[in-house]
Amino acid sequence: MQRITSPTVTSVPGFVAAGVAAGIKLSSELDLALVVSEVPCTAAAVFTQNRFAAAPVVYDRTVLGFNPMGIQAVVINSGCANACTGTEGMANARRMAEMVERALGLEAHSCLVMSTGVIGTQLPMEKIQRGIQDAAAALRSAGGSDAARAILTTDTRPKTAGVTVEIGGARVTIAGMCKGAGMIHPNMATMLALICTDAAITHEALDVVLRRAVEVSFNAVTVDGDTSTNDTTAILANGLAGNPLIDDPASLAFAAFEEALTAVCIDLAQQLVRDGEGATKFVTVIVNGAKSDADARRAAKAIANSPLVKTALYGGDANWGRILCAVGYSGAEVDPDRASLFFASKQAGLDWLQVVDRGQPTDYKEEDAAARFAQPEIEIRVELGLGEGHATVWTCDLSHEYVNINAHYRT
Amino acid sequence: MQRITSPTVTSVPGFVAAGVAAGIKLSSELDLALVVSEVPCTAAAVFTQNRFAAAPVVYDRTVLGFNPMGIQAVVINSGCANACTGTEGMANARRMAEMVERALGLEAHSCLVMSTGVIGTQLPMEKIQRGIQDAAAALRSAGGSDAARAILTTDTRPKTAGVTVEIGGARVTIAGMCKGAGMIHPNMATMLALICTDAAITHEALDVVLRRAVEVSFNAVTVDGDTSTNDTTAILANGLAGNPLIDDPASLAFAAFEEALTAVCIDLAQQLVRDGEGATKFVTVIVNGAKSDADARRAAKAIANSPLVKTALYGGDANWGRILCAVGYSGAEVDPDRASLFFASKQAGLDWLQVVDRGQPTDYKEEDAAARFAQPEIEIRVELGLGEGHATVWTCDLSHEYVNINAHYRT
Repeated sequence: MQRITSPTVTSVPGFVAAGVAAGIKLSSELDLALVVSEVPCTAAAVFTQNRFAAAPVVYDRTVLGFNPMGIQAVVINSGCANACTGTEGMANARRMAEMVERALGLEAHSCLVMSTGVIGTQLPMEKIQRGIQDAAAALRSAGGSDAARAILTTDTRPKTAGVTVEIGGARVTIAGMCKGAGMIHPNMATMLALICTDAAITHEALDVVLRRAVEVSFNAVTVDGDTSTNDTTAILANGLAGNPLIDDPASLAFAAFEEALTAVCIDLAQQLVRDGEGATKFVTVIVNGAKSDADARRAAKAIANSPLVKTALYGGDANWGRILCAVGYSGAEVDPDRASLFFASKQAGLDWLQVVDRGQPTDYKEEDAAARFAQPEIEIRVELGLGEGHATVWTCDLSHEYVNINAHYRT
Repeated sequence: MQRITSPTVTSVPGFVAAGVAAGIKLSSELDLALVVSEVPCTAAAVFTQNRFAAAPVVYDRTVLGFNPMGIQAVVINSGCANACTGTEGMANARRMAEMVERALGLEAHSCLVMSTGVIGTQLPMEKIQRGIQDAAAALRSAGGSDAARAILTTDTRPKTAGVTVEIGGARVTIAGMCKGAGMIHPNMATMLALICTDAAITHEALDVVLRRAVEVSFNAVTVDGDTSTNDTTAILANGLAGNPLIDDPASLAFAAFEEALTAVCIDLAQQLVRDGEGATKFVTVIVNGAKSDADARRAAKAIANSPLVKTALYGGDANWGRILCAVGYSGAEVDPDRASLFFASKQAGLDWLQVVDRGQPTDYKEEDAAARFAQPEIEIRVELGLGEGHATVWTCDLSHEYVNINAHYRT
């Protein structure tokens, strides 16, 4: 497996893309992206669990339900989420797809739709229409970076990742883009990701591998614990790599594809956290020795979502009591007399410092803990001493800037 | 039922109290409170659900388990939580109780202990010893207000409440004090409350009525969703009012006592929220029409705990999409096409404004919503249209000041 330098979705053979300014955002920034494959693709997607799923989520679920092997385009707008928009919003999501299909001469139900931005306002359909025409005219094989910029909201930079991997003698490319910033949370949260590949793979295998990869990447990051109405991670596979068809989850080819896709997803997910709203620290939370992986996940997420832990991280205060406290209310099985806690900042060359040994503080030096918490990259490790359960979750701190950004998002 | 003016725990006949500066806090503030009844009391308590329950919680559970009718004193220190302190911490909690029992000539196992403050450091037992001696010497029938000040941490003001109520021809007094500030959350979170009454009531009835009152008061408020290691709400009933013994939960006397105790608990709980760390707004979240009360509670708490909702409240931004979004991921049963949303600020004379009608925005004027969100007291009401389930939860906003306070709490 090899990382691609400056990867974009158009690093993948057979894909073209464009990003244009359609005027959906008040600024003149790019706000509409179009990604198109030369040939119909096999597609799969993972969607938000939010009960107020936005119109494009409902639309895509339906389309993928009956046409998972005939997807050829994805249109994405920022600036308006088309969520909580009722029947008009549903009609607009469908019309957006139809506009693309018409502009490109594609089959019906071959275009997926994603939207992100403010909730509760209708899409400006005339601007969308013009934007789609402009984007269709601008499609090119170097258009991936414009597309990656056009899907951003409060993100400060585009997020892309890509690898190539040898499968059955063929060179397969996997590359993607995503947007995040606020409302990033496990189980998908105002987070859009589109991954393209030229692998030949069945719909069933693609669905399985995407779910597995999302579980350990996008579902293992959290900025503020909020789960949005629009979250979508979709993958399109156009089969042009010419590899033997991947269809058996027990095969070596599947394993190679899974490893590569997971690497792309983790790369994108970590970029989401690093660019979390107001984030000043990148924090890895590791929980080992839990009764089960699910318990480990609960404990790790409770730490990662605790406002008290996150503000302490922001302040560089190695307040380990708050970390154990979060584990204690997480719902995970805990024996206080077995729990141990460690801090590190590997990137700064500071190895694991044990601050709690089976429920009681060690005689560590406060300055050693403070040195780790002062770094921009911090690792927190909890050993529960109860079993084999493990989880890793990535998060960021809670800063003044987070409050600034979110107190006045709409204004 | 009548509210008491300037209530304190010593408003209750038969109780004396003191608050002293024992030097546990770095500042010279009061940090040790002692509350004592002339005669042994029936007692009950509700404790934190956190798996890392602090030593005083473990101690009090044990004592109440075998001596619920012989409690005569409560000692409370701030500045050190005696949590995550292992066997030494357990021994210190027991020694604190024994010091009080010795100083006052009380029976063994007649004193409860509460601690609040930093987690993971041992109690300074010499200072505690001296503080207990000073407090024992200072006990007086007007000492309730000193006691209320001595239990505070980052609180900006003492919190007390009290009522009198006629039960079976006798005048019964119920009065209490509490501390909160950060880490306030349903299911009890670095929140200590002590309520005293002169009612004559059985231990069984007292236990039932306290649990019910806590459920709709302390467990219905949230500042940041964190649940601490030390939370305790305890009640002592000395029986001096001379009312006929309250023992039957189906009796009128029980109902009168429950109403009065609930009023005291709600008063205290709302004071906790108003004094939440950095709070600038007091927000009432009401959910009606849920499938069940439990579902309504889930939805209300998801709204109240969402950092995105709380920062929007801070900014005065009537961002209703975030509110519905929180309902959508709360786990409550939701039909998007039936959910409606209303804002009000009753205190400012601004009645309910409907912003969402069965899943879709109404044509309300943004300035009308903004006018409500600009007020210091805001009501949010969600109608789910699915059943009879109801919940009310109180919360505050998430401000820059919250980040300031918590980024450097220990330093």
